[in-house]
Amino acid sequence: MRHTSLLLFLALIPSTLGAQKPGVPVPSDYDRRQPPAVVATLSPALIQELTSIRDAGLTDDYAYRQVAHITESIGPRPVGSPQAQAAIEYVAGEMRKLGLEVRLEPVQARHWIRGAESAELVEYPGQAPGTTQKVVLTALGGNHPTPPQGITAEVVVANSFADLDGLGRENVAGKIVLFNVAFDKQKAAGGFAGEAYDEAVLYRGQGAKRASALGAVASLVRSVGGADYRLPHTGGSTPAEIPAGAVTSEDADLIAHLAAQGKVRMHLILASQTAEDVTTYNVVGDLKGSEHPEQIVIVSGHLDSWDLGTGAIDDAAGVAVAMETAQLIQHLHLHPKCTLRVIAWIDEENLGRGHAEYARAHASEIGNHVAALESDLGASHPMGFRAKITPEAQAQLQPVQDVLRPFGANLIELSSDSPEADIEPLAKQGVPAFGLLQDGRVYFNYHHTAADTLDKIVPQELRENATALAVMGYALATMPDPLPR
Amino acid sequence: MRHTSLLLFLALIPSTLGAQKPGVPVPSDYDRRQPPAVVATLSPALIQELTSIRDAGLTDDYAYRQVAHITESIGPRPVGSPQAQAAIEYVAGEMRKLGLEVRLEPVQARHWIRGAESAELVEYPGQAPGTTQKVVLTALGGNHPTPPQGITAEVVVANSFADLDGLGRENVAGKIVLFNVAFDKQKAAGGFAGEAYDEAVLYRGQGAKRASALGAVASLVRSVGGADYRLPHTGGSTPAEIPAGAVTSEDADLIAHLAAQGKVRMHLILASQTAEDVTTYNVVGDLKGSEHPEQIVIVSGHLDSWDLGTGAIDDAAGVAVAMETAQLIQHLHLHPKCTLRVIAWIDEENLGRGHAEYARAHASEIGNHVAALESDLGASHPMGFRAKITPEAQAQLQPVQDVLRPFGANLIELSSDSPEADIEPLAKQGVPAFGLLQDGRVYFNYHHTAADTLDKIVPQELRENATALAVMGYALATMPDPLPR
Repeated sequence: MRHTSLLLFLALIPSTLGAQKPGVPVPSDYDRRQPPAVVATLSPALIQELTSIRDAGLTDDYAYRQVAHITESIGPRPVGSPQAQAAIEYVAGEMRKLGLEVRLEPVQARHWIRGAESAELVEYPGQAPGTTQKVVLTALGGNHPTPPQGITAEVVVANSFADLDGLGRENVAGKIVLFNVAFDKQKAAGGFAGEAYDEAVLYRGQGAKRASALGAVASLVRSVGGADYRLPHTGGSTPAEIPAGAVTSEDADLIAHLAAQGKVRMHLILASQTAEDVTTYNVVGDLKGSEHPEQIVIVSGHLDSWDLGTGAIDDAAGVAVAMETAQLIQHLHLHPKCTLRVIAWIDEENLGRGHAEYARAHASEIGNHVAALESDLGASHPMGFRAKITPEAQAQLQPVQDVLRPFGANLIELSSDSPEADIEPLAKQGVPAFGLLQDGRVYFNYHHTAADTLDKIVPQELRENATALAVMGYALATMPDPLPR
Repeated sequence: MRHTSLLLFLALIPSTLGAQKPGVPVPSDYDRRQPPAVVATLSPALIQELTSIRDAGLTDDYAYRQVAHITESIGPRPVGSPQAQAAIEYVAGEMRKLGLEVRLEPVQARHWIRGAESAELVEYPGQAPGTTQKVVLTALGGNHPTPPQGITAEVVVANSFADLDGLGRENVAGKIVLFNVAFDKQKAAGGFAGEAYDEAVLYRGQGAKRASALGAVASLVRSVGGADYRLPHTGGSTPAEIPAGAVTSEDADLIAHLAAQGKVRMHLILASQTAEDVTTYNVVGDLKGSEHPEQIVIVSGHLDSWDLGTGAIDDAAGVAVAMETAQLIQHLHLHPKCTLRVIAWIDEENLGRGHAEYARAHASEIGNHVAALESDLGASHPMGFRAKITPEAQAQLQPVQDVLRPFGANLIELSSDSPEADIEPLAKQGVPAFGLLQDGRVYFNYHHTAADTLDKIVPQELRENATALAVMGYALATMPDPLPR
């Protein structure tokens, strides 16, 4: 997942009712406070199809079985790993079993490999003779490595970029900078997890570059996420000429407390390597449209993951629910009018070359993309969608919201930017873009950690995600007219 | 902490009111359901002293500063480590600063040292070519090591000892046994953390011995604790002739899921070592009694810790609140009638040689021990005490409960066994024994893990613990008569 603001409690608000008909209950006062909706209609036959998808999806275990296989039998899937390749081949094979026309679309990607990583404080106030303090940390993706034997330097703590600039080159050069900016757990628990993430992830992304500019020899960031279980959160960072890692929240506290008392020196090993670029693949599977096969609706998740956990909520779940869209349509013998394209993106966690290459290779067909959907905010209960669409398009989707309302996935929250990273190139060119809007309150406790594992997925919540994506995907591919742009 | 059943919600029940006086409100129906109390009295002067201890303790930071130094400047304190020795010297020095008569009482202890530890699944259903699945685990204390290069064997999963016995030697010999018994998180969240712990810890304690008896080559246990952050929980185990480790709950799930589908083989390295026994020390500091210096009330915690975290809640906090008892008494210029003995026990997490040696060395004075108190269930809000005392003794403590009631630490829960491990030899010989009864709902999420760190302690809750221990300790040392046994 990239960035989103989660208006959690909005999910509890019923969406606007349509035209009043005799016999239809008068809306509650709460409903009456909503702006009047454009009247939207879908054929009874299509509503019936969407309802059948919903009812089948809420009791099907296909997506869960896919996630279980991808995480437990295949495992972590960093770009360039044999696991990533195995997952590509597995998903392609499963898509073929569903009757899709499957292509592996090649992508040239950076091949970054985690190496030995460890750190300890070797000098600090109150230190007992012959002792050091262990620091738990992990390298950030694309890390510029330390020498194998590591480096030793004083640590300077910055609580913001302004703080770093205030320290200046004279206090930063030759030192290890720790950006000690805490992820706001209360904000996340209150339903604004994306906002909490955005605030802290700046330092993961830009910290090494900023520290390097002032002569620092390495850059560490307080882990961006809500875990308080001595668990480091990895993630991408803007390439810099110095090593970049993330310490746990506990270790950030330790260093900050000791540094407030006096000089702290650290021995740091972050011995990763960047190998030759590799050829990897987006997996693209088409269920051809019955009336407008050249018109495309994408349902998707990303298949690559970080290497620490098994990438269950980020994002085997997204790939699995996209596959389930095809599974449900085929199982119910339905026929979308436009082509339903299932994509398992590659390289989302690395440099984003998967979606960039798709946009390049399909540049001439972007106009044929009716909509692009992705799930990349975990697998908790979906409240609906975050969408970069027009208010007019939103109004036309009201009948789809009605189908999703019984399990609380009926929210459509408008967004001015792309709801997810892999569909951003399409969104920027005007393709209506939808991200599944999961309850993200605990997502960032596990995000990019070793604890992103299958047990974090509640099977019924995964079914809800698969169902919401399938209903919306099929609706967009079968509505009489494409959404206005 | 060792074993206790936590009746959390009992803490909300007011203790029995004493004799009714004119003008005193009639007790509620709930109070009336309590058995009538023996009328107990303490002198107004003593009540005033206890009140002054309470009021000073609830605003003092001495204990927190001690925990911070012990965990952050000194660090993990496994028996035999330089950190354990540094902590012994530090605590002895601080006790001397408080004006106590301090002795280091020698203890011969096992010196177990964690080594390299790692595991991976090397064969399993659905395995992709050229891949393995990482398993996160840690060695149990006293582990019999694997060879440095590790061992490779099939894994067999047992869900109980009956299950293991059902498998029999023919299915166990030559294999690695995984005891997959989950810690009951709902029970812990509901206030019965000790019971949840007791149920699961059987397998950590006895698993290796039982598996070894059937010819297993190693024994693994699902981590005993509530963390779901890929965090292994170490702990003691009965010595066996095979390696013994704890996998995380996530890895236990992974192995169990794959083993249900087919053969699973693991490569396992648990390369610890047991060195020569070491001489270590209980730190014993006396604040001499003004009337009965030969009579002793112990307030205590244990200074050794596991090596993974920094041992903040287990049990630097216990040592610190015991030290605070002396700090408050000295600060307020009070004079207990009996000797107040502050003990920082050693070796609680290892073989318990610290308290065993104390009982041996002080055998002739056990009759002079008026009471023994320990804090070893973390640092969350104290609800009161769990006590191995008679109902008559409990009734005499009612005025002390009244002093503790304003901050909700007024519960005294009777127990038939010793509330804590270090005071068990004394409790068994009839010494009234008290364990601080903390809110243990999250204690076992962090217990024996790398995440047992300073941030898990809420300063105000630590003050409450220090205050409860100081009030009860001073009361027991200054009451007109010792508690009946």
